[in-house]
Amino acid sequence: MAIVNENFLKLSDNYLFSEIAKRVKAFKESYPDRSVISLGIGDVTQPLPKASLDAMSRAVEEMGDITTFRGYGPEHGYDFLIDSIISNDYLPRGVELSPSEVFISDGAKSDCGNIGDILSVNNSVAVTDPVYPVYVDSNVMSGRAGSNMNGVWSNLVYMTCNIENHFKPSLPKRHVDIIYLCYPNNPMGVVLNKEELKEWVDYALENDSVILYDAAYEAYIQDEGIPHSIYEIEGAKRCAIEFRSFSKTAGFTGVRCGYTVVPEELTASTSDARRVSLNKLWNRRQCTKFNGTSYITQRGAEAIYTEQGKEQVRNIINYYMSNAMLMRNVFEELGANVYGGENAPYLWLKTPDGISSWDFFDHMLYEANVVVTPGIGFGPSGEGFVRLTAFGRKENCSEAMNRIKKWFR
Amino acid sequence: MAIVNENFLKLSDNYLFSEIAKRVKAFKESYPDRSVISLGIGDVTQPLPKASLDAMSRAVEEMGDITTFRGYGPEHGYDFLIDSIISNDYLPRGVELSPSEVFISDGAKSDCGNIGDILSVNNSVAVTDPVYPVYVDSNVMSGRAGSNMNGVWSNLVYMTCNIENHFKPSLPKRHVDIIYLCYPNNPMGVVLNKEELKEWVDYALENDSVILYDAAYEAYIQDEGIPHSIYEIEGAKRCAIEFRSFSKTAGFTGVRCGYTVVPEELTASTSDARRVSLNKLWNRRQCTKFNGTSYITQRGAEAIYTEQGKEQVRNIINYYMSNAMLMRNVFEELGANVYGGENAPYLWLKTPDGISSWDFFDHMLYEANVVVTPGIGFGPSGEGFVRLTAFGRKENCSEAMNRIKKWFR
Repeated sequence: MAIVNENFLKLSDNYLFSEIAKRVKAFKESYPDRSVISLGIGDVTQPLPKASLDAMSRAVEEMGDITTFRGYGPEHGYDFLIDSIISNDYLPRGVELSPSEVFISDGAKSDCGNIGDILSVNNSVAVTDPVYPVYVDSNVMSGRAGSNMNGVWSNLVYMTCNIENHFKPSLPKRHVDIIYLCYPNNPMGVVLNKEELKEWVDYALENDSVILYDAAYEAYIQDEGIPHSIYEIEGAKRCAIEFRSFSKTAGFTGVRCGYTVVPEELTASTSDARRVSLNKLWNRRQCTKFNGTSYITQRGAEAIYTEQGKEQVRNIINYYMSNAMLMRNVFEELGANVYGGENAPYLWLKTPDGISSWDFFDHMLYEANVVVTPGIGFGPSGEGFVRLTAFGRKENCSEAMNRIKKWFR
Repeated sequence: MAIVNENFLKLSDNYLFSEIAKRVKAFKESYPDRSVISLGIGDVTQPLPKASLDAMSRAVEEMGDITTFRGYGPEHGYDFLIDSIISNDYLPRGVELSPSEVFISDGAKSDCGNIGDILSVNNSVAVTDPVYPVYVDSNVMSGRAGSNMNGVWSNLVYMTCNIENHFKPSLPKRHVDIIYLCYPNNPMGVVLNKEELKEWVDYALENDSVILYDAAYEAYIQDEGIPHSIYEIEGAKRCAIEFRSFSKTAGFTGVRCGYTVVPEELTASTSDARRVSLNKLWNRRQCTKFNGTSYITQRGAEAIYTEQGKEQVRNIINYYMSNAMLMRNVFEELGANVYGGENAPYLWLKTPDGISSWDFFDHMLYEANVVVTPGIGFGPSGEGFVRLTAFGRKENCSEAMNRIKKWFR
């Protein structure tokens, strides 16, 4: 008798974004003449950089010619892309990496979800609260999260982020083996400076913990001095895995490309205290359960590192960040408590008068016809907040803010 | 202290294809003037069908225009591709599927590797011997394979395939929960007819087992009456998951697209005997740990179902199958014991005089300068065999056979 992985049954059916979709659908059925603007789901709207389009068109042509056709690529990605990543994303920030430390994939979500494969299910895990749900759900599926009591997982350590601590988590009080960090943060839009990030690296080195560092939004950092990579912190190569994505940097949400850095120096322990290279384990995982990323996609990603590509990417980022600035300014004028949006494409807004995330969601939907994401969907400490994204078209973002101005108190 | 997943440490470092690469490299260094022809790794050589190239070029253009740009697609794939799959791959063979039963992915290797996520690690597993190594290695990683004693995994049931049983496994003597089947078979190149496949479906229904059916090579079936899908067998929707790939069908090894069918009717048990839909679990797994396949790739895959696309695919398959026929004919003339290659792109060749797989590999390399794959790499019962693939260019395949003729005894 085949038995299912019963850990899956602990997961709730109500996924945040499907609940949002349901409520929006109900609204549209009641008010079919109203135009709804979404500042909810974090998907991009601007077309791909021209440099990427040109590179992908050329790559498609190559695949049609027997002399340039490519079959299976290396599971960990083509050197042309890995080399571009190292020399553009890392070397200028003082981080040296060897090609064997960079693994190209079909996106950071896959890698963040699959990374648990190489770690024991008995490790303890710390996550911020609020948090990107994939970190939690993938640990629930593997059994590492334990059991759920009133929305809290028994084996997870929650690091509360709130107004008092400026949405920056404190070091966990009890020892943890694995720590998920995401900066610039989704959903709260805040960043850590070098000193703050160094505390985490130091903690991990002292406690022999592994930091899973999600830097999918690093391209949105505006302030000098904010680290783009955790490896800018000394010692991080001995305790951290870093996830990066072309999704938000270059509009690749529908093209699917990201990468994960697993330094050669990074080891974790066996139960009898031998040290094992996580790079070797991740390589084995990927060679067994993955077959590389589309050649065409990898050529598209490589092109963002050309001079033209860099300029086009900068323009896209500036476009979204001007949305973020517009939104911040309006909320500040209105006297609202708004956070993030300065080095990240997300704003984290306190609901007025302490009303709940979902009530505020409904208000925004019914009164301004604007969709936001209820903060409670990211964890208990998200209650009383909503997330807004800057990824919309400028005209929509501007119109949404005009509507909000009219009724926001 | 973070602990690694120690199941990984049970895996051997010596992966078949890296050992082959090492030996070929050593040969080329000793004999730099000899041209080596590979009939080894199962990668295609013909360019993509023109219909796919045109569709991908158009899709790249769409991604450059704000009015047609696409961001995140559905995790389970676009309806345009799912509908084409159902109406072309299934309906003509009498199999009705709903769109929610088809999950588009970046390839069958990912899905075959990840499917274990939704099943308990305590299930018993049966594999054929020889077998595609991904089935075994992914079960080792999750702990489901148990421990290794002299190359044999304690929790795996091996179903021996040899000359006596025509390389078709017998039903397992003891009860198993999960059964991996691959037809047309990699590496042995054999197929099952409907009566033979029905025995497995009947076994699975009686024993409440789940069949993981890898049909990545179904496009190579030439004989009428051989099932292309396990769902052509009555009852299979209640016991089987089917994996399909565009890799070998349409040359997508470097483009990455496949799909997995998980019927709504398919359930497995909890430990307290409740029934759970595997479709729901796989959907949850994909929504959490995967973010869909490239839009451009999906348009490329859709195009193989157009009239032009179908003809182009047929031509590619015929091209490779004429290689297979050429190889079979030569080996038969030589009086060799050769199997497969009639409904599959793989030939399974008995080594002469009972010499070992690796010795024969070395003979072929040093005497004919032809690379084959040692059968032992696919399992103990592969000893004394080698696998040859038909995916080369015709001129190379033909030249390889001329060389082999000269010295084969």
